[in-house]
Amino acid sequence: MNIPKSNLPRVVIIGGGFAGINLAKTLANKNLQVVLIDKHNYHTFQPLLYQVSSSGLEPDSIAYPLRKIIKKHKTSFFRLAEVEQILPEEKQVLTSIGNIPYDYLVIATGTKTNYFGNKSIKTNSMPMKTVPQALNIRSLILQNFEKAAIADSKKEREAFLNFVIVGAGPTGVELAGAIAELKNNILPRDYRDLNPSDMHIHLLEGADRVLPPMSLHASKKSAKFLKALGVKVHCNTFVKDYDGLTVTTNSDLVMQSETLIWAAGVTGAPVGGLTADILQGNANRYHVNAYNQIEGYDDIFAIGDIALMISNTYPKGHPQVAQPAIQQGKLLGKNLLRLIDNKPLKPFVYRDKGSMATIGRNKAVVDLKRYKFGGFFAWFIWMFVHLMSLVGFRNRIIVLFNWTYNYINFDKAARLIIRPFKK
Amino acid sequence: MNIPKSNLPRVVIIGGGFAGINLAKTLANKNLQVVLIDKHNYHTFQPLLYQVSSSGLEPDSIAYPLRKIIKKHKTSFFRLAEVEQILPEEKQVLTSIGNIPYDYLVIATGTKTNYFGNKSIKTNSMPMKTVPQALNIRSLILQNFEKAAIADSKKEREAFLNFVIVGAGPTGVELAGAIAELKNNILPRDYRDLNPSDMHIHLLEGADRVLPPMSLHASKKSAKFLKALGVKVHCNTFVKDYDGLTVTTNSDLVMQSETLIWAAGVTGAPVGGLTADILQGNANRYHVNAYNQIEGYDDIFAIGDIALMISNTYPKGHPQVAQPAIQQGKLLGKNLLRLIDNKPLKPFVYRDKGSMATIGRNKAVVDLKRYKFGGFFAWFIWMFVHLMSLVGFRNRIIVLFNWTYNYINFDKAARLIIRPFKK
Repeated sequence: MNIPKSNLPRVVIIGGGFAGINLAKTLANKNLQVVLIDKHNYHTFQPLLYQVSSSGLEPDSIAYPLRKIIKKHKTSFFRLAEVEQILPEEKQVLTSIGNIPYDYLVIATGTKTNYFGNKSIKTNSMPMKTVPQALNIRSLILQNFEKAAIADSKKEREAFLNFVIVGAGPTGVELAGAIAELKNNILPRDYRDLNPSDMHIHLLEGADRVLPPMSLHASKKSAKFLKALGVKVHCNTFVKDYDGLTVTTNSDLVMQSETLIWAAGVTGAPVGGLTADILQGNANRYHVNAYNQIEGYDDIFAIGDIALMISNTYPKGHPQVAQPAIQQGKLLGKNLLRLIDNKPLKPFVYRDKGSMATIGRNKAVVDLKRYKFGGFFAWFIWMFVHLMSLVGFRNRIIVLFNWTYNYINFDKAARLIIRPFKK
Repeated sequence: MNIPKSNLPRVVIIGGGFAGINLAKTLANKNLQVVLIDKHNYHTFQPLLYQVSSSGLEPDSIAYPLRKIIKKHKTSFFRLAEVEQILPEEKQVLTSIGNIPYDYLVIATGTKTNYFGNKSIKTNSMPMKTVPQALNIRSLILQNFEKAAIADSKKEREAFLNFVIVGAGPTGVELAGAIAELKNNILPRDYRDLNPSDMHIHLLEGADRVLPPMSLHASKKSAKFLKALGVKVHCNTFVKDYDGLTVTTNSDLVMQSETLIWAAGVTGAPVGGLTADILQGNANRYHVNAYNQIEGYDDIFAIGDIALMISNTYPKGHPQVAQPAIQQGKLLGKNLLRLIDNKPLKPFVYRDKGSMATIGRNKAVVDLKRYKFGGFFAWFIWMFVHLMSLVGFRNRIIVLFNWTYNYINFDKAARLIIRPFKK
């Protein structure tokens, strides 16, 4: 894998998500050699994936080449590879491009979609964790619009126009809002051969309210916003099965739908090779101490969604969102520098900056420590925070322009079926 | 296929390229029902495809949803379908979504890549006629950069960094220039683990000069520009074979390359069902009269690249570029309206607006009837004409911003391997 030898200790980072890139940035041009490994050659800004799915943004505005992120880091290297296993005894990572030795290893692999063991749902539903998956959803939505236009029967047409989203966390809520906007704004203009009232968006949630991780205030507000957009919310509802057409649930709700988007949960994406008892159940996260060290290893760390750091304040670990990942990435960077300088490490303390979700134009909910609010101002804050969190000046401008254009024109302009999705 | 019945005569247009959309626009809201059929749901601005291949632009900036083009045309419909055959006796088009009856049929299917019967080249080379093909090239270039970074031997590395482009028409010349910019500007910064001098761009042309359809002045200028960028031009050179690694030619030039881009020629993409003798040899174009009527049919027309209209000025037909397609689409629209009003048709007269090609930043060549020039001013004209020819205000702004950003930063920012290309 041809990484230049150096006298500097080598940190290998697996994963270029929020945790991984913030760690890499903190270690830029320091007395460490950094090797960043990812199976994609870009960082994905996951909070806006749903806008790719719903034709609002193109991938280049939310994805950013990892090599561009580290281009000014003189002792850093990127490798496009899939990690197969860790060999902790030999201090090596076994990858698709060969073994990569490390002095310190950081696992920042995040999460993957959790189907809770249901194979039929896994086969037939659409996940939305990566750019290709988001593009698959975009293609499928647009293909189903085209198929609805030529459907022979009302029943067939309704199955093409019935969009079922499972899981009313921020991802599900935001996607439901965006698809409702396709119905309300795009169908009447660009699909005059379809009747918008034939299109339905169903949002299914196992808990008793939407946005269960947020405040009751946010749940109520967002349920109201979703209703105004025409989204049908079903709480206390689990999907039992989906064969590609029929959705069955724990209640008497049965639906016909060609499109089921699965945003119902995630599970850790651990790497093989470490002793198994450090992972727990469905969460599949590595137990780490306050310094993000994986239990039992001095030289292996886990940060972000894949790390489970239990504290009095967070007995179930930190929420699997961007902020803990960013903060852990930055702190671990500083701690690794302290480590090679033989200085004591600093424990991680999570600074909760609040959470938010948007539900269509002009509407969002924001939970801060002291204030909870919703509506236009929340939506403005949501836009500003997301715009500023994007990597790269160019991406910010492109997103800002697209948002402005889409806002003024009630449009979503990237409605392209580039690679048709085949079920 | 559920197109509302109407008392208006129906025009079916096959193909949403330059010819098809200009015809559809001319027929907007007139006393005709228009059905536009395409196998993609978007119009492709082919002259800028090479910028998608070379990571300069994302597809959404050069592709435009066909439904958006006709959204204000109240008697027009779009259908996503592949045309299988024409049934001229029954006045129907047989498609993947069923039979579509017509009163007037317009074939605007354009061209496809011509491999001149070489199966091995067809299997192993990369064509660049569609957005998915351009994205495949983008992925392959970036994948080969990554593979070069981990190559075991110099020989292996050089095959990954050897880019062979066959055909020095505008497409080949412009792509060669853009790939040379990746070498000159991106490799030194973002691929510090590669040596830019290991990368080579070869442009092969069967004729004795680059840009054979343009003036001698343009050929000389562009050859000079290509040389300055580091592109190695080989004239009088045909590729004899390519097995995915070894390129053999009619001369003693033999190269090892993982990437061979085939821009050496096109052939018509006719539709089955019309009597075969109206097509000719390699060109595969429909013989049409001065009204773009296909010989032997009153109600079937061909426009654009697929039409062969022989005149004294153009004894081999019009050049297969955007302008004849646009002008024929517009005129046929007016003629169809005259036809239903029982007015005499007007014959097509091509107004040659000139031709141009760009070769990297600040450099282009322009051939007008009276003036031939190259350099910075030509480049500026090239940009202006291409920007203004794009469909849609949003696309123009996005392209303008990306060009400005890339120009200032010597960057090509869409370097994303979203769907890895598998040989």
